Order: sequence, then C-alpha cells, then structure tokens
Amino acid sequence: MAKVEWLEGGITAVPGILASGVAAGIKPGGKKDLALVYSASPARAAAMFTTNQVKGAPVIVSMEHIRGGEAQAIVASSGCSNVCTGDEGLRAAREMTKIVGELLRIPAKAVLVAGTGVIGVPLPIDRVRAALPKLVKSLSPRGGRDAAEAILTTDTRTKEAAARVEVGGRPVTVGGIAKGVGMIEPHLATMFCFLATDAVVSRVALDAVLRRAVNRSLNRIAVDGDESTSDTVAILANGLAETAPLERPGPALRQFAQGVEAVTERLARLLVADGEGATHVVEVVVRGAANRRDALAAARGVANSPLVKTAINGQDPNWGRIMMALGKSAARVAQDRVSIAFNDEVIVEAGVLRPGARLDRVREIMAASEYVLGIDLGLGRGQERVWTCDLSEEYVRINGKYTT
Amino acid sequence: MAKVEWLEGGITAVPGILASGVAAGIKPGGKKDLALVYSASPARAAAMFTTNQVKGAPVIVSMEHIRGGEAQAIVASSGCSNVCTGDEGLRAAREMTKIVGELLRIPAKAVLVAGTGVIGVPLPIDRVRAALPKLVKSLSPRGGRDAAEAILTTDTRTKEAAARVEVGGRPVTVGGIAKGVGMIEPHLATMFCFLATDAVVSRVALDAVLRRAVNRSLNRIAVDGDESTSDTVAILANGLAETAPLERPGPALRQFAQGVEAVTERLARLLVADGEGATHVVEVVVRGAANRRDALAAARGVANSPLVKTAINGQDPNWGRIMMALGKSAARVAQDRVSIAFNDEVIVEAGVLRPGARLDRVREIMAASEYVLGIDLGLGRGQERVWTCDLSEEYVRINGKYTT
Repeated sequence: MAKVEWLEGGITAVPGILASGVAAGIKPGGKKDLALVYSASPARAAAMFTTNQVKGAPVIVSMEHIRGGEAQAIVASSGCSNVCTGDEGLRAAREMTKIVGELLRIPAKAVLVAGTGVIGVPLPIDRVRAALPKLVKSLSPRGGRDAAEAILTTDTRTKEAAARVEVGGRPVTVGGIAKGVGMIEPHLATMFCFLATDAVVSRVALDAVLRRAVNRSLNRIAVDGDESTSDTVAILANGLAETAPLERPGPALRQFAQGVEAVTERLARLLVADGEGATHVVEVVVRGAANRRDALAAARGVANSPLVKTAINGQDPNWGRIMMALGKSAARVAQDRVSIAFNDEVIVEAGVLRPGARLDRVREIMAASEYVLGIDLGLGRGQERVWTCDLSEEYVRINGKYTT
Repeated sequence: MAKVEWLEGGITAVPGILASGVAAGIKPGGKKDLALVYSASPARAAAMFTTNQVKGAPVIVSMEHIRGGEAQAIVASSGCSNVCTGDEGLRAAREMTKIVGELLRIPAKAVLVAGTGVIGVPLPIDRVRAALPKLVKSLSPRGGRDAAEAILTTDTRTKEAAARVEVGGRPVTVGGIAKGVGMIEPHLATMFCFLATDAVVSRVALDAVLRRAVNRSLNRIAVDGDESTSDTVAILANGLAETAPLERPGPALRQFAQGVEAVTERLARLLVADGEGATHVVEVVVRGAANRRDALAAARGVANSPLVKTAINGQDPNWGRIMMALGKSAARVAQDRVSIAFNDEVIVEAGVLRPGARLDRVREIMAASEYVLGIDLGLGRGQERVWTCDLSEEYVRINGKYTT
C-alpha cells in the first residue's frame, strides 16, 4: 500500500485549485448556498451521476459536458435541486454554466453544474445570476472550507479530506469536499463529492480510478436506501504534479488510486457519521460468502434493514434481526453456518447463540460511536464491507415534520 | 364478481371449524399466547411460508407436514418464535404437533405449527406442554376471537374476517384470523394468516386459490420491507358445503377464489392499518406501466421508500420524493410522462407540478386515515396496487428502545 499523508485544507490543498462559497439567497437566513471549485489550468475530468431514472436538470447538463473528458470548474447550488422543473430548469442549469464560463473565460462545456434541495421548485435563477460574479471573485486557494459549507443542506458539519501519496517516487495531492448522504432530507437531498488532484493522468485512467474508488467507498454506505435524483461525484485532474503521465495499469497508477480511495473513504465515513439523526457508525463486514457479489448483497441487506438499524440505535444485540436480514438478502445463506461478531466478540456460531455468549460485552461495544459488525457466512471466500448508521426517531422527525 | 356477504365470527364462522386461545406463560402478564384452529372433519390444506432463507423450526416442520395436502389443525405460539434454535428447536416444534395430534386423535402430520416472537431464544416447551390439554379442551365454535387474540404480539387489535359467497348457486363460507405485518416488532415479529373454509375443493385447486389470493393481498402490503423468518399462511378446507367439488378452472372456482380474496384483502388492510406506529393507510395504485411487473415494482418502490413513508406521516405533499422513488425502482420510468394524484386531485402532470395544482386540497386528503396515491407512468397498460402505511417516530421507538 502507498503511504498516505493526511493534509489540511480539503480540496484547495491541491496545487492550482481554487474554491469559493457565497450566499445567493436560495437558502433562507443568509446561509452560503452557491459553491465553486476551479482549476486555474485546464484539467482532465471524470464524473459519476445518480443511477436514478429521474435526473435533475444539472445532472443532465453535466452528463453532456463531461463527455469530452475535460472540465475546469464545478458550480453547485444548495437549497433548490432544480429537479422535475422541465425545460425551464434545463435552461437555468445551462445558463449557470454559461455565466461561470464567461466569468472564468473558459467554455461553458468546461463547467459542471450540480444542485441539491427540494424537488419540483424552480431555481431562483435571478438570484443565482446576480451572485455568480461575487462567487468567481471570491475564488481563493484557501476557499475549500467555504465551498464545503456552501454545498451543505441538513448536514451538521462540513466534510473535507486531503491526502498526499507518492506516485513513482514523487508527491501527488488529492483533495475533496462532500455533503449529505443518500436521499436523506425532506427539501434538500443528495450526495455530492467533488474531488481535485494535481496528478498527470489520462482521461481513461482517471475515469477508471474514480469509478473504482467510488464503488469501494461512497457506494458502500447506507443511510436509508433511497437514492437522490441529483447525486454527483466529479474529479478534476490538472496535471501540475511532476510525475510521468499515468496512463496504463501499473504500480504508479495503483499508488494514485490508493490516494483517491483514501480520500473518498474518509469522506464516506464522514457522510455516514453525519447521516440524519445518526449516533452510531457501523462497519458491516461479510466474509465467507459464496462469492463477492453475495458478500455485498448480504452486507447491504444487513446495512439497509430498518430493524437492524433501529436495533443499532437502541444498542440492542438483537442478532436474530441480523439473521433475518441475511436470510432475506439475495446472497446464498445456510443458516447453520452463519457466525456473527461485534468487534472481536462472537455471539452466534453455526446459526445459534454461542454457549456462554457475552451479551453484556456486546452491549458495551454497541454503546460506542463506531464498531464493526462481522458476519461469516461459512460458504466460500467472498468478502465485502459496507458502512451504515442507525435509524433514530430524529430521522423520522427531520423527514416527516415540516410543511412544504 | 361474486357477491360477498360479510359475516361475524372470523375463522369460526366457518361450519365445522373450532378454535381456542389460552395463556401458557410464554408471554408475561398472563396474556393469551397459544392458539389452536381445528377442523372437526378431515380437511384439504394448503400453506405458504416465508421466502426468507432463514426459517424458524415451526416453518420447517409445517413445510414437511403440508406436503400431503391434508391438515386438521394449526397450533401457534406467540412470544417466542423458535427460530435459530438448532436441533432443540426442531424437537420442540415436532413435539407440539405430536401432543396436539394425540389430544385430538389425529396424526401429528395433520397438525401445522407456527411461532412468532423473539429469534434465538429456546421455546419454553415445558410450559407449552402443560398448557396444550387446556388449549384443546377450550376449543369452541365461538373461539375464533380467542385464537385471534392469542397470536397477537405488538398488534393493538385482533384481526378477523369472514365472508359467504355463492359458489355454483350454493353458499360457501371463508373465514380467517391474522396478526402483525411484515417484520415489525423487536421480539415478536411475523405475519400469520390462518384461514378456513367449508368449500369442497381439490388440493391442487385450493393451493392455486390460496397463492393467487395471497399474491393479490398479503403480498401487496408494505410496512418496513423486512421479512420475518416465520411468516405463515395456511388454509383448511373441510368440504362441508353442499357444492359440487371444485377442481377445474371455471365460474364456480372463480367464485370461491373471490371469496378467499375478499377475506385476505380485508385482513391485509387490517394488518397495514395496525402497522407499528401507523396512522395512515395509503393504497398506492400504479397505472400506465410498460407491463404488470413494472407496475408492481414501481408501486413497491414508492410504498417502501422511507422518505415517502415519512412524508405520509408528516401529511406533506412532497411529490418529488415519489418521483425519486419511481426513478429508483426497477420499473421503466420516463420522467416527463409521469402523473401523480392524491385521490382525484392531480398534482403532477408530464413530470412537473401541474399549473394551478391545489396543494392545500392534497394536504386535506393526506390528513385522512386512508387515501389513494395514484400514479400513471404513461408508458403502457400495466397496473398494480400495493397498500402501505406511514413511518412514524413511534415505529422507531417501538423497535429501538428496549433491552433484549
């Protein structure tokens, strides 16, 4: 494994990356609601979007713009997602990229756009239009925190990470900001993860690295199983690092990939920990599955079960619910081969309560803010992990009690 | 459609069917926890069980016993599910059928057994053994209510239904009792639906009628998406009605099927209405899907979405969440063709808010305890419906806050 050195500064820890965040008046109360990430030099880019068939206007526009594999800016609004807003919404999203492009003197096509917030309400484009010059003027090599703040919705804290890895013996920096997890908020849904790096990397390699990193981190977290219409992950790679170009599989590309994965995994953990009403983060590790796909299905089944998630909330070692969730999953399960442990404390063996199982010890483990729920299916060598959080009364309060 | 006449008396409204319920001391506080349904004459039988790969000992034993297509009794315990209890659990379940068989002078194979309650805890077989003679002695042609009470767990009320239909010009009676819905309670999970009829019906026809009725009613309800390890549906048909034997497809079999469906649908609605913490029952009707499978996938996607369910709880016409859940489902969705209505009030057309949509009127509709959420996908002729309830803070309280 490449050595990962953690840095301060989030996305603007990356050389040549500027960012800003301002209040455009989309959110009430003068909160920051418009964010910009900018690479001063041309950059390769890759992006991933929600697989929901209903997609927001910003997603549709960004999917067009990313086709060329280059981008220099990401502009994001929070407080209004601009989803299910018809042609008017598409025009507004395109106009945002056009104005930002003009102000930065880059093509509109080099600007990606993202939005998070209530679905079905028109974007107040007049306010956005008026605020964009200030957003561009505020760009700063120390602006990562402002951008991280401007993309928040019900998140209780900003999420930033930055790391330096040695790639072929020379330093490469990766930084990112993120918000919200899954589909978790009434008005203001969506997961964003914006990344930047100074790696010298081809478009194809960058795309592959991003997909792998996201599949092993952001796609391994479960808050409520819903999926936003606006989820957006994007990475800009400006090539300022002094390494040989990363194009083909090999040790150097693996080192870079590990740096990207380190950042996305840290951001993923921060997202779960800040899930609505969440008080516990649990790493669900499934081993011994018939194959890797089964391992993932089993881990997801447990991580998404409302009954398991309420038991995590209640700090209750109700292992029968874990058996139930495993049995219901698409993974092959033989109930008399299953073992279950909390951290290192095994409580189920061969599908039944282990004689002398220390449930009191398990309750202590479950009182911690983070722990590992380990499951061995006893069928093969498939292994996967997923992070989840608890389902609390607070989640329901946040998501039910408000007026549109 | 056959005319359905509703009767009092639940399962014991059926001629020749006796039932009872007693307290064996499995549940605390002297609550009834042992139920028996008995056909005084030999009966054809059909049953359906949880598809969860983890199955309780009673399910495993009943699956063996139903193979012959005959049964005269169903014995059920509540307060302990006898799941994940190994060989000892299997022995206990078999012993229950053996003792009941001896007391009723029928083969053990003619007795089905079911259990609901906490997983992984041994059944207190001594208490059950001691209570079974009293359970058999209490059998009565008016005992349906006692049996309905003895299978309850966190249910707040008994669930009974009975109906008479004309089959080939002669009356046939169908009655049933049910409990709990989906996997909804910490200790005491599981859905049971026990049915009886005096129809004269072949084993094969009875099985087909039961499967169709369950698929159109009990398999169309959503509380939390989890599935118990103990779900059991069974029907006894004692052939006392004075009709020609029902064996082949035709008008008479359809009439009988309509009677069974009427009873299972009523029980399904009662189950949803009594979901943990539920305050609203919503019939999600999807029309215009590319095909029927898509219609069901779309309806289930909406019915199971935690964000939709919290919006139902908050009486909030947050239609964007419905769009999100549709887009995420396995059904083909074209977002600009979707329309959404609450009862007859259309709020979304062509995927956007309808001009002049009366959200205040929708809020009034959502304040009712029951309403219809109608969705038209605008793609084809597929149609399906699913019943769901809201996700309340009370659900989380019930499922999180207790000690094993």
